[in-house]
Amino acid sequence: MYTLYSMQRSGNCYKVRLALAQLRIPHRLIEIDVLKGEHRTPEFRAKNPSGRVPLLEVAAGRHLPESNAILWYIAGGTPLAPEDRFERAEALRWMFFEQNSMEPTIGAAYFWLTLVRGGRELKMHEIEGWTESGYAALGVMEEHLDGHRFFAADRYTIADIALYAYTHMAHKAGFDLGGFPAIRAWLKRVAAQPRHIAMDAVPAQPAPVAACQ
Amino acid sequence: MYTLYSMQRSGNCYKVRLALAQLRIPHRLIEIDVLKGEHRTPEFRAKNPSGRVPLLEVAAGRHLPESNAILWYIAGGTPLAPEDRFERAEALRWMFFEQNSMEPTIGAAYFWLTLVRGGRELKMHEIEGWTESGYAALGVMEEHLDGHRFFAADRYTIADIALYAYTHMAHKAGFDLGGFPAIRAWLKRVAAQPRHIAMDAVPAQPAPVAACQ
Repeated sequence: MYTLYSMQRSGNCYKVRLALAQLRIPHRLIEIDVLKGEHRTPEFRAKNPSGRVPLLEVAAGRHLPESNAILWYIAGGTPLAPEDRFERAEALRWMFFEQNSMEPTIGAAYFWLTLVRGGRELKMHEIEGWTESGYAALGVMEEHLDGHRFFAADRYTIADIALYAYTHMAHKAGFDLGGFPAIRAWLKRVAAQPRHIAMDAVPAQPAPVAACQ
Repeated sequence: MYTLYSMQRSGNCYKVRLALAQLRIPHRLIEIDVLKGEHRTPEFRAKNPSGRVPLLEVAAGRHLPESNAILWYIAGGTPLAPEDRFERAEALRWMFFEQNSMEPTIGAAYFWLTLVRGGRELKMHEIEGWTESGYAALGVMEEHLDGHRFFAADRYTIADIALYAYTHMAHKAGFDLGGFPAIRAWLKRVAAQPRHIAMDAVPAQPAPVAACQ
């Protein structure tokens, strides 16, 4: 059974929890609270030198980091992961876009402005850049969704899961989605998929944390 | 035949040119000079709303952006793209790491400090963050390469190509690789691969730009 090291309030971790739930994949969940420095312990860094969550233990001692790589691993062979060569490249295109244009902007704004006490003061020089680049990323998504129901392969895939994580929280980081009607409609379509779970849902299926440690 | 819209001095574009050369894939090359604003023309934005290079035209009117997604597309079915489920996830892990931890730090430093006139003054508040995060990314790579010859699947793959692009230029952006012996040895191994081309190599095989426009 997989073990997922995850922080409940992290968008990158939510992606993996959402996909695991939708694919009905049994797993154990171990909460690593980055805000308490639990990712900096020698035990965790031995599993993942970059010290980040999510981290999936796919077999004893074999660990896979990077949320979007984990999505490809767990969804491989299911309809959530397009395997046609062009459709796969399309899904990857949006997932690399997510890691390069959305996570470091809207994701960073969410983390520092809503989770870290004093984050606004610490990062005051970066907020303008995040805002400008974040809205630019939303603009690219809006233009695509104006003519498509989903991001790749004409269906709901892990590309949608990857982009949903930070987009559906963007308003908490101060982004106004009022001017992005296609994104708002897509957010509803994603939330309406079978076995969708909310980011703050208490995990029902995995074993309690205490039992996993 | 593919058409690649590319800027010679861009690390992201170099990745694709290197893979095309190593795979001996015929293509036309069209230079888009971002520093002259050629990515902002209505014609180019109609092809890629995000206005970025590289952009690959895979068939008439069908365009694929994002360097690492292009690598998966053009290398699909060759030894450069691992298809085993775990090996694929390993390669993806490093390619997402590259887009999230290296391109926005070492890549940004290279762009603003070496290509853009006045970039150092414009981005003075961001240089410290790029430096800290860039060295952290190099540290993660060094730790991996201390026990591995390549990044994924025990062989040279598109994950190495993706990470090579900005790592081999890091010194130009002020990063000192003196403390990273495993990275320096890996850079030599990558440069010794068959049909390797240097970033500033003048393309021999593609048609002249004038003939493509």
